[in-house]
Amino acid sequence: MYIYMHNETATGVTNDLAAVRALLDKHAHPALLLVDGVSSICALDFRMDEWGVDVALTGSQKALSMPTGMGIVCASPRALEASKTARSVRVFFDWKDYLRFYDMGTYWPYTPSIQLLYGLRTALDLIFEEGLDNVVRRHNRLGTATRLAVEAWGLSNCCQKEEWFSDTVTAVVVPPNIDSAEVVRHAWKRYNLSLGLGLNKVAGKVFRIGHLGNLNELQLLGCLSGVEMVLKDVGYPVKLGSGVAAAAAYLSNSTPLIPSRI
Amino acid sequence: MYIYMHNETATGVTNDLAAVRALLDKHAHPALLLVDGVSSICALDFRMDEWGVDVALTGSQKALSMPTGMGIVCASPRALEASKTARSVRVFFDWKDYLRFYDMGTYWPYTPSIQLLYGLRTALDLIFEEGLDNVVRRHNRLGTATRLAVEAWGLSNCCQKEEWFSDTVTAVVVPPNIDSAEVVRHAWKRYNLSLGLGLNKVAGKVFRIGHLGNLNELQLLGCLSGVEMVLKDVGYPVKLGSGVAAAAAYLSNSTPLIPSRI
Amino acid sequence: MYIYMHNETATGVTNDLAAVRALLDKHAHPALLLVDGVSSICALDFRMDEWGVDVALTGSQKALSMPTGMGIVCASPRALEASKTARSVRVFFDWKDYLRFYDMGTYWPYTPSIQLLYGLRTALDLIFEEGLDNVVRRHNRLGTATRLAVEAWGLSNCCQKEEWFSDTVTAVVVPPNIDSAEVVRHAWKRYNLSLGLGLNKVAGKVFRIGHLGNLNELQLLGCLSGVEMVLKDVGYPVKLGSGVAAAAAYLSNSTPLIPSRI
Amino acid sequence: MYIYMHNETATGVTNDLAAVRALLDKHAHPALLLVDGVSSICALDFRMDEWGVDVALTGSQKALSMPTGMGIVCASPRALEASKTARSVRVFFDWKDYLRFYDMGTYWPYTPSIQLLYGLRTALDLIFEEGLDNVVRRHNRLGTATRLAVEAWGLSNCCQKEEWFSDTVTAVVVPPNIDSAEVVRHAWKRYNLSLGLGLNKVAGKVFRIGHLGNLNELQLLGCLSGVEMVLKDVGYPVKLGSGVAAAAAYLSNSTPLIPSRI
Repeated sequence: MYIYMHNETATGVTNDLAAVRALLDKHAHPALLLVDGVSSICALDFRMDEWGVDVALTGSQKALSMPTGMGIVCASPRALEASKTARSVRVFFDWKDYLRFYDMGTYWPYTPSIQLLYGLRTALDLIFEEGLDNVVRRHNRLGTATRLAVEAWGLSNCCQKEEWFSDTVTAVVVPPNIDSAEVVRHAWKRYNLSLGLGLNKVAGKVFRIGHLGNLNELQLLGCLSGVEMVLKDVGYPVKLGSGVAAAAAYLSNSTPLIPSRI
Repeated sequence: MYIYMHNETATGVTNDLAAVRALLDKHAHPALLLVDGVSSICALDFRMDEWGVDVALTGSQKALSMPTGMGIVCASPRALEASKTARSVRVFFDWKDYLRFYDMGTYWPYTPSIQLLYGLRTALDLIFEEGLDNVVRRHNRLGTATRLAVEAWGLSNCCQKEEWFSDTVTAVVVPPNIDSAEVVRHAWKRYNLSLGLGLNKVAGKVFRIGHLGNLNELQLLGCLSGVEMVLKDVGYPVKLGSGVAAAAAYLSNSTPLIPSRI
Repeated sequence: MYIYMHNETATGVTNDLAAVRALLDKHAHPALLLVDGVSSICALDFRMDEWGVDVALTGSQKALSMPTGMGIVCASPRALEASKTARSVRVFFDWKDYLRFYDMGTYWPYTPSIQLLYGLRTALDLIFEEGLDNVVRRHNRLGTATRLAVEAWGLSNCCQKEEWFSDTVTAVVVPPNIDSAEVVRHAWKRYNLSLGLGLNKVAGKVFRIGHLGNLNELQLLGCLSGVEMVLKDVGYPVKLGSGVAAAAAYLSNSTPLIPSRI
Repeated sequence: MYIYMHNETATGVTNDLAAVRALLDKHAHPALLLVDGVSSICALDFRMDEWGVDVALTGSQKALSMPTGMGIVCASPRALEASKTARSVRVFFDWKDYLRFYDMGTYWPYTPSIQLLYGLRTALDLIFEEGLDNVVRRHNRLGTATRLAVEAWGLSNCCQKEEWFSDTVTAVVVPPNIDSAEVVRHAWKRYNLSLGLGLNKVAGKVFRIGHLGNLNELQLLGCLSGVEMVLKDVGYPVKLGSGVAAAAAYLSNSTPLIPSRI
């Protein structure tokens, strides 16, 4: 069994699942491929069947832009088969209970959250109205714009290889004389801006800009100008407007017209 | 009777009500002072009693940040007295009906919109939580930042005297070779940004940036960077990031910490 | 010009519009037929074209089950033509302004309440999903059930002719020793039940039970059992359960299965 | 360790926790007392400290009247101590993670559902506004009224001892010739009424009436009249109005005035 995180939220790194699959295939490895898609599914390109993914998992609170509360799992026939003999500990979320009830019609083994189910229906309607491909393209646009801003600020991306850059979150490395936790605190206290803390090994060294879900170009630019002010406030010699200008130069060339308004 | 617009939404001009009052007083003029405060009350400094205003009027959909639907009127004893003998046409909104029912307790002459009344309660709670003075200061901050951006873009304010600048809306004059209606259309079609059209005499010549209500610094900066992209798209040689930089330089020096988060 | 109230909310009387039309036709009378359909349209059978109605009017807060705030008007070509030369006083709601903007596309002469427009879309979706004919039938069912309960209580309907009975509201006459205002007050204070007061000539003599909009059989029965308890509480010798039993006997024979659940 | 269900949802039986505690005390038994309060807490009398409960558990979707999604746990110092050495399987809901983060301030080990936390705040505000004692009394009133209706219908309560009667749910035993699942199905399909199925050993033999949470007297009476119609429809010779009359006779004597409206 191989558990793979499609997109690493803490560091802004996206893994190449197709390559993982190719490697498994090359060695005819029998491992099941399990994908943590919490910060990727519905935002990054993800191909369950083509990449031979056996279990994919996501949550309601990321790219679906819903309230926290729903875990969504998709399992391949191979995974379902394997679960019958697996000896891992299972309690509340045992598939067996759900599968048994699905066979009975629209029932659930436990009290479902009807509100989140209605929310999921609407979230998917919004995604399909925009078009899943367009959603993925929009995230790439927002991610690229963010990276251009970081570069313009003279800061570096925690992710060190271009092919791993994440289109849903960017972890920005601050200079040694700056405490990234102070960046996050100050953004929250003065500009009502929620940035992500650096976690574990990069605590104090990176802050994170999330750019996923129901987010558009101007919301991102508002966030980036907020980050510029925060950087200035905490003593980093940023040129105000520099990151926004770099991001806007790219966005004004790449943002498509809104189809329903043409 | 003297009807005065406190803030002219179409051109971004704020009138000096205290001066109007002083003029009326100087000449011992008996005129009632009626104030259209639709785009000013709860955003700009307004003093009903001190300025001897007889009737003040606003709506729910501007500085109160509520849905459209509620007209709010405040009348002085002198105005109430005058209404008894006035011969202006009155139908649905006749004060007399409302006053009669107020005397009876919590009744209304016609079916009230309970939802908007609850909304008003909450809108006022939010304003009082921030502090009305702080709300007025925030609008001044947002208005100043917008004007600095307009200046940085090399464009001019439709309002020609500094003392008349409006802190709730800025009408921006475009060069003769640009159609301001195209600016508004393009902002809507490409960036999901709602700007205001120039109306009547300034149609085609100005577009308007609203900055009132439940709006903060980063939302305004997102809007300003959107305007920059639109200006570039329609052929105006704007330096991307220039307006945002000017606005942010001012805002990073003037935005206070959020009291509940200190 | 003939102004007709389709359904009289204060007394629970429904007028026969088809007969009014027939009378006008018989005498080749040129009067325009204006219909106040506030408590009828979308609940009672109403046929604008077939009955030659020139102006129909309703509000959002009755059969549409929306918040108060929207007045809805439909005018015939003849009414539009007449409005051009009419000399009645017109201010805010002048059709001319609206018609001019309709021609320009999706614009409005004044700031519209977007929220109520979305609400109207949903209210109509719900009505069409049930089927307008079924909605009318449901109101007839609820009105009939209410009248059977009133009869079982030994009370009488303020409306004296069966063919005028209203399917959206029933005004119930109380005996001389009971104050109907006390019935309404007590229902509100003890059972959280909103009944309508008797108005004007029938003040103190009738209370009203509304049965229109997004209401089903069990909600009505809950209301009827509440009225029974209130009647008992204020000293009327009602047999508890008697009205509910009469209504339920009728409803259990006439309520159809819910189509989506068959 | 002793796991006790305070209120058995499937059969409408309330256990006497004080007696369980007394028994444990009498024998100086060291067992921890764990209480499943899912369908009791915030509706039935529950005394964590007085009854020496070590762990109490409830959910958001029952007496709190919130959406499904939140599990609420309260643990005694003794339970926290025991958890350190216990060897039961623990994954997502391990207290240790939560306790560690509580110490750090307002943080959570995992992404919390902010919406449900705001909902909980409001649910508790509503309960405290009514008064927890009054909430418990209201549930007793609703439970008593339901039992009187069941008796009037000539049916029996699945719970066989009066001291075990549940004030939050009543399981009603149907005669052998009636299928209780058909009662539930028919209620849903014809009257939009959600009754509970009989589970396991009592499947087909009982249906359940829930009467907990944000529910008042008239809503319950509407439900009871619905049950009467369903019973008639499925062939049980019920006298329509009989259960409602019995419940209403009791409720009209016991329902207090609403304090804010006196």
